[in-house]
Amino acid sequence: MRILLVNPNTTASMTEKAAAAARAVAAPGTEILALTSAMGPASIEGHYDGAMALPGLLQAIRAGEAEGADAAVIACFDDTGLDAARALASIPVLGLCESALMTAGFLAQRFTVVTTLERSRVLIDNLARHYGMGARARVRAADIPVLDLEDSGSHALGRLTGEIERALEEDGAEAIVLGCAGMADLALRLQQRYGVPVVDGVSAAIKQAEALVAQGLKTSKRGSYAAPLPKAYAGAMSAFAP
Amino acid sequence: MRILLVNPNTTASMTEKAAAAARAVAAPGTEILALTSAMGPASIEGHYDGAMALPGLLQAIRAGEAEGADAAVIACFDDTGLDAARALASIPVLGLCESALMTAGFLAQRFTVVTTLERSRVLIDNLARHYGMGARARVRAADIPVLDLEDSGSHALGRLTGEIERALEEDGAEAIVLGCAGMADLALRLQQRYGVPVVDGVSAAIKQAEALVAQGLKTSKRGSYAAPLPKAYAGAMSAFAP
Amino acid sequence: MRILLVNPNTTASMTEKAAAAARAVAAPGTEILALTSAMGPASIEGHYDGAMALPGLLQAIRAGEAEGADAAVIACFDDTGLDAARALASIPVLGLCESALMTAGFLAQRFTVVTTLERSRVLIDNLARHYGMGARARVRAADIPVLDLEDSGSHALGRLTGEIERALEEDGAEAIVLGCAGMADLALRLQQRYGVPVVDGVSAAIKQAEALVAQGLKTSKRGSYAAPLPKAYAGAMSAFAP
Amino acid sequence: MRILLVNPNTTASMTEKAAAAARAVAAPGTEILALTSAMGPASIEGHYDGAMALPGLLQAIRAGEAEGADAAVIACFDDTGLDAARALASIPVLGLCESALMTAGFLAQRFTVVTTLERSRVLIDNLARHYGMGARARVRAADIPVLDLEDSGSHALGRLTGEIERALEEDGAEAIVLGCAGMADLALRLQQRYGVPVVDGVSAAIKQAEALVAQGLKTSKRGSYAAPLPKAYAGAMSAFAP
Amino acid sequence: MRILLVNPNTTASMTEKAAAAARAVAAPGTEILALTSAMGPASIEGHYDGAMALPGLLQAIRAGEAEGADAAVIACFDDTGLDAARALASIPVLGLCESALMTAGFLAQRFTVVTTLERSRVLIDNLARHYGMGARARVRAADIPVLDLEDSGSHALGRLTGEIERALEEDGAEAIVLGCAGMADLALRLQQRYGVPVVDGVSAAIKQAEALVAQGLKTSKRGSYAAPLPKAYAGAMSAFAP
Amino acid sequence: MRILLVNPNTTASMTEKAAAAARAVAAPGTEILALTSAMGPASIEGHYDGAMALPGLLQAIRAGEAEGADAAVIACFDDTGLDAARALASIPVLGLCESALMTAGFLAQRFTVVTTLERSRVLIDNLARHYGMGARARVRAADIPVLDLEDSGSHALGRLTGEIERALEEDGAEAIVLGCAGMADLALRLQQRYGVPVVDGVSAAIKQAEALVAQGLKTSKRGSYAAPLPKAYAGAMSAFAP
Repeated sequence: MRILLVNPNTTASMTEKAAAAARAVAAPGTEILALTSAMGPASIEGHYDGAMALPGLLQAIRAGEAEGADAAVIACFDDTGLDAARALASIPVLGLCESALMTAGFLAQRFTVVTTLERSRVLIDNLARHYGMGARARVRAADIPVLDLEDSGSHALGRLTGEIERALEEDGAEAIVLGCAGMADLALRLQQRYGVPVVDGVSAAIKQAEALVAQGLKTSKRGSYAAPLPKAYAGAMSAFAP
Repeated sequence: MRILLVNPNTTASMTEKAAAAARAVAAPGTEILALTSAMGPASIEGHYDGAMALPGLLQAIRAGEAEGADAAVIACFDDTGLDAARALASIPVLGLCESALMTAGFLAQRFTVVTTLERSRVLIDNLARHYGMGARARVRAADIPVLDLEDSGSHALGRLTGEIERALEEDGAEAIVLGCAGMADLALRLQQRYGVPVVDGVSAAIKQAEALVAQGLKTSKRGSYAAPLPKAYAGAMSAFAP
Repeated sequence: MRILLVNPNTTASMTEKAAAAARAVAAPGTEILALTSAMGPASIEGHYDGAMALPGLLQAIRAGEAEGADAAVIACFDDTGLDAARALASIPVLGLCESALMTAGFLAQRFTVVTTLERSRVLIDNLARHYGMGARARVRAADIPVLDLEDSGSHALGRLTGEIERALEEDGAEAIVLGCAGMADLALRLQQRYGVPVVDGVSAAIKQAEALVAQGLKTSKRGSYAAPLPKAYAGAMSAFAP
Repeated sequence: MRILLVNPNTTASMTEKAAAAARAVAAPGTEILALTSAMGPASIEGHYDGAMALPGLLQAIRAGEAEGADAAVIACFDDTGLDAARALASIPVLGLCESALMTAGFLAQRFTVVTTLERSRVLIDNLARHYGMGARARVRAADIPVLDLEDSGSHALGRLTGEIERALEEDGAEAIVLGCAGMADLALRLQQRYGVPVVDGVSAAIKQAEALVAQGLKTSKRGSYAAPLPKAYAGAMSAFAP
Repeated sequence: MRILLVNPNTTASMTEKAAAAARAVAAPGTEILALTSAMGPASIEGHYDGAMALPGLLQAIRAGEAEGADAAVIACFDDTGLDAARALASIPVLGLCESALMTAGFLAQRFTVVTTLERSRVLIDNLARHYGMGARARVRAADIPVLDLEDSGSHALGRLTGEIERALEEDGAEAIVLGCAGMADLALRLQQRYGVPVVDGVSAAIKQAEALVAQGLKTSKRGSYAAPLPKAYAGAMSAFAP
Repeated sequence: MRILLVNPNTTASMTEKAAAAARAVAAPGTEILALTSAMGPASIEGHYDGAMALPGLLQAIRAGEAEGADAAVIACFDDTGLDAARALASIPVLGLCESALMTAGFLAQRFTVVTTLERSRVLIDNLARHYGMGARARVRAADIPVLDLEDSGSHALGRLTGEIERALEEDGAEAIVLGCAGMADLALRLQQRYGVPVVDGVSAAIKQAEALVAQGLKTSKRGSYAAPLPKAYAGAMSAFAP
């Protein structure tokens, strides 16, 4: 089985970290095909970055499917482009936020997502509501720029643990979800430290991808995710026409 | 006052029709600056088209703001790019779906949106839930390709009225919302025919834009819609970096 | 265009302040017809006052419509009598709470309403849920009697700003809604002070009224807001029979 | 124990029927004090009638409490004035809709309310949502004018049973709630005919009133239902000032 | 009238306390038949205890119905086995949580449940959401083992009052619900101390049981609560086969 | 990896069918340990059967964990005992309904569950709401006794396909979920026939179990699922004490 891992952040070191997390949980026969988007923001922080990451993300989805991927994972916790990728691809596509929230839901009744920036907090809270987890998931922002997670000397870890501790004390959180693709290397350590499940989105999505492929399940092409209709695309986007 | 009307569908005839609807309801001192997106799908039908329309849409938002627009309207009922445009721009930005649903909510307790294709039905139903109108709005699809609305000889009108009649009979609809930018010319006629309010998204959004400007209100830059952070954008998207 | 502004609080100075706010945002051709209810409570604070304000309010709605008003605004943030006025009148009727929440929703994902008394806090919270804004709007009470807002020497402003500051810090509010008709003169000043949108209900409702009239939209008379059926009204209410 | 039954419809024959239903279920020691409102609509059909019934209703609540009532029931399924009466009175106040929905909820997971006119259907549906029963209760209108229920020769019963049968077949209703005070005499007969629980609002509310009194429970005066503040009431309403 | 009170906690002293509370509110002609479950946990604290209490609970329901009970109350605030008992019995069955929440809802717009252990907090919060009270009820745990409530020398009362005071201050609670069958003796005292309604589940459920019987209402046997189908039960459970 | 599959229906042929479905999707290194509950109903149809299946189910969970299982799956679509099993076990526990709904949610925006009996329909609808899928999942009953699914000569398949066809036509279902453990053998065939994803709960749960084990995730023991407290269990349940 071959799973495509697309990083819509155009920062290769972040892709490597996510790919390492993916390979750590993948089943023996699963190959991880990690692609960094070729165009778009170095890091996705908020709605504008998320929108401008889409052409590069969708191009990579198409390329990965052409290379024989059986499923795809979008390595961004905002689940940017998830619906578009599901419509485009014939293989199943997983997002980090959706996968992580569903995974946490099997382990705990109430849990808290700790994300990076305040501007992403409400965005993820809205995703949680959209996925039906609004009554169970709270979202906190630790005030960490995404790329600071790539820098081991930053204050990122301290801010993250501070917010986790507030989640446990003030929210009554029974589990923690790490709300950024760039935190994948921290889950195990934090789980041991706090004694509650700590869910990483990359790991969760890879396992969901494997699960769907093993069951022979693909995205429904009836209704919401019907394949794009053939039509002209104008200007610089003409190469992306379906 | 100058209101930017961006059509993210790259079809100029659709822009003209929307601009005519906009001008018909605009206040005497309001100038409508209508722009057709320079890149992207000829018509937006579903999630993939909606995603690929974003660079062209956001480019036009930026251009319009640079030309002195006081507010912007995105002329697509899917509200594609609405959050990104709000983060990007310092002027207020309105979407057709949100504006039309809120407008209908002032007139009726229960109403039905009639949109074009089945693939847009659940997308709009999800928007309605996101906007808090899930208990009040139903969504129906009339099975009309978007560009058929540009063709006066098509069967589009018959399908539309058939679905409106089912909404009145089966849903107990007290008002109708036309769920596509390309239906702007039909609202008045249908309102007279059926004796219930018929809301057109372009008209609704233009009036909301005027209302916000008159009140001196702009998008909050605290939290969700904070301005994009300066950063590198890779590849073909480098010109779009904030 | 002529917009009726009915103050269901029988305090003329409050009507004047609301009318001034209305005229400040009205379009050039809009005339504001401000009426103070002739019977009922001096100020509406809670459910009983709100109920006993209705005959005077609805009498004024009827009188204003007879004088040729094109739309009506009820100048009370509790939206008391809004559904009854919509059923009674053939012109569109707007409430302050509904108009302000919808307006804030175009500007921010999360916002806080600051109202006067604790007894109005849950009432407005229930309105916000009814209007579909329960997940987005929080409500706080500043412990200010309504008529104290008429008295420039009171402590009202200090209590109001204290509560706004708590909303920004503790709720993560991205915008503020002033939850009383008597606060209309403070919005601009507070907006400048805190750097977030501050929405006033009177202004918001006037602009919504103009917007509906410009679009040729009136309250649906199908279903919920069907005109009252002719029938006998007993006793002191006989003059109010439909 | 003395329970006040206020009919806000100013039609004495309807009061008699409701009082008979009340006495049929009241405990041996319970006295029913039935009052017909002295002013307002002969029957409450929609929002305007409901608003104009309030002064007469609240006057009767006050009179009944002065006569030593231990609790009060408002005999209208729209629960008009319920919040105001709770704020006004120091005794507990029950509404028919709220009492009937809660009662049905102890007997069935899903049930259908059958009310009179289409204009009341959404009003009751909104009440059901407000009371937390939106997922469990459906509402149907049988197209019966309220006063036709007083007329044994009308077609009312046939329309009512037709709608009950549709509820059982199409909604999967497990119980039926009669959605009008004027249907109190039919519950037992319909229950025997259809073999499912048929809940009448007058009966349900009387028993809830008894239950609260027996437990020594009264409306909370902290927050939403705090007693009206002393203040001037202008004009014809001056006699109603708190 | 004869009401069965089943204590699914196999601790007789708790049954006696609940029976005393039941008799204190029961109508003159009502006999309370109190049964302690013969098998299962001494106290129900969390999901496992709740599950293992079911055979004993349902056996007692069946026994009580055979002895002529007209309705049954399950004396545990978790409402464990409520749906199963409703399916099994032909008489109405009431739970403490459901009865208490509905009762509180007649008295206050917002209220707080104070329960024993943290492990029961989310369980009750989920029940409140299931019963439609999620927007109105908050739940707090006072960290009291259930059986400590039987011990007058414990610190239980101090912890309980501390949590009630936090509910009043921090939640804006307008009423309090005691979230454990073992707190039935405290309601009146706490109500006098804090001046807000304090609802006890045993009392609330007994009165609901009386109310249903007086109205001639029984659990619907159509749909969710249809009688168990005859079938073989294997092993130690064979005696429980329907 | 060793996954325990507990069939709480005490019918061995159903266990065999579920075990075959489990083995068909399990990863190469996964061993399926299938246990049929030793006590309780031959088939679980409704709330009473579900309650009486718990002791046998939880006994098997405990036995399986003692035999070294890494995760457990409860082979009943009602998810009976899921919360109790999560509290009891230290290994993760999955239910069919929760697993299947989450799986379908990765593939489709709207889907329909087709279950066996009408009495299970609302039960599953309530589960879907509890899991946050209320807006996305509809539930239909095909009127098939559970054990008829074991009998190849029954009319079960025809009724099932009839209901699937209604789901596609009337609900706009984009995917189908088979709502009974006994339908596991039909998923692939139906998927090919109807061209939409058909999700089987046994398969979905097995893959979720593998996913959690691979990620090193276990049920949170903080809060809702804290381990049962040591205490006496009375009578026939004494052997089940924690």
